[in-house]
Amino acid sequence: MKLYFAPGACSLADHIALNEAEIAHDRIKVDLKAHQTEDGRDYYAVNPKGYVPALELDDGQILTENIAILIYIAETVGRMLPARGIERYRALEMLAFISTELHKNYKAFYNPVASDAEKDEAHATLAKRFAFVGEKLNGNRFLLGDLISVADCYLFVMLLWARKFEVELPPSLLSYFDRMRDRPSILKSLKEEGLS
Amino acid sequence: MKLYFAPGACSLADHIALNEAEIAHDRIKVDLKAHQTEDGRDYYAVNPKGYVPALELDDGQILTENIAILIYIAETVGRMLPARGIERYRALEMLAFISTELHKNYKAFYNPVASDAEKDEAHATLAKRFAFVGEKLNGNRFLLGDLISVADCYLFVMLLWARKFEVELPPSLLSYFDRMRDRPSILKSLKEEGLS
Ligand SMILES: N[C@@H](CCC(=O)N[C@@H](CS)C(=O)NCC(=O)O)C(=O)O
Ligand SMILES: N[C@@H](CCC(=O)N[C@@H](CS)C(=O)NCC(=O)O)C(=O)O
Repeated sequence: MKLYFAPGACSLADHIALNEAEIAHDRIKVDLKAHQTEDGRDYYAVNPKGYVPALELDDGQILTENIAILIYIAETVGRMLPARGIERYRALEMLAFISTELHKNYKAFYNPVASDAEKDEAHATLAKRFAFVGEKLNGNRFLLGDLISVADCYLFVMLLWARKFEVELPPSLLSYFDRMRDRPSILKSLKEEGLS
Repeated sequence: MKLYFAPGACSLADHIALNEAEIAHDRIKVDLKAHQTEDGRDYYAVNPKGYVPALELDDGQILTENIAILIYIAETVGRMLPARGIERYRALEMLAFISTELHKNYKAFYNPVASDAEKDEAHATLAKRFAFVGEKLNGNRFLLGDLISVADCYLFVMLLWARKFEVELPPSLLSYFDRMRDRPSILKSLKEEGLS
């Protein structure tokens, strides 16, 4: 497998999941502004939608969309997403929530022409959404309880961004973030992206 | 099962999926402005996030987030989402794309204080994203080819909104929309929501 990524972007969730799953993989860095891969290819030829993450499978097919890639990684390794029962749907619910209600609400921070009002609104919305996640976490080690899931990999990246853009976080998420940051898979991923 | 919905909202995707799966279910209408269910309950007590869809499972648990509910319905009925192989991940990729790149970009149209510039941007972004879906569809009957999936149920609702807000659609999606609208599960769902 080959992950197309940009340092610290949402593709870091997939990178962490691959390392957590101990799946050997290559990584190709993408310059999102120039739409070029580090080996000099037009990124639109890899993913016509222009964004990361994209995962090149061993048969050369390209899979896009964070949720789909995270589920693919989990189902390939046979861990990090319960195969059945309500826990499975709680994990999928968290993945969807992180993608649609956390990730999407950072848009104003990545938009160079966003107004202060838009950024204020993003701060307020994200703080409310993180408060909800903090309650769900409820002192547990991971979102699903004792077992790490791909939703934790994605949430970690959203918390990294929260620190960067000074979004208010509840205490339970601050200590979750500190614990997660010490995991070998995360230390390794941050280092491999040049972020530590 | 019991679906909490608002007429014509994104919960229509789940309603169509339930009818397409021929799963008997109850429906409770939610007044999203008043945050009240039609049987007089505070909707925040059902879903603290305040939005639809929410699916009450037979044991009383509440499942939220469109993607999670659609996967739940498909895995419960054993159709409408391939169980393995690349087709499975293509379906999940489409679900994630529809949720993060189509659904989310309608925000300006549902925001009473959105500026004309924001609405223009939404029109342009959506037209670009629909052009991509039109190419993917490539004359096929459904997104995955010959078999309907829960991604089609969700896409239909996004197309209904595109008609409502006059978003430009490629010819292949216009004929897809007309074909889908004639399906018994969709005729039934629109009628049950008072939309036909
Ligand atoms: N719908 C996509 C969105 C991915 C996304 O937002 N990627 C960002 C980085 S975090 C990006 O590549 N932005 C640059 C661009 O869109 O051109 C997904 O869920 O994977
Ligand atoms: N992340 C949720 C978002 C659902 C959503 O946007 N629901 C809209 C209707 S289409 C809604 O209920 N809006 C009212 C509100 O947020 O208060 C999902 O994917 O299911």
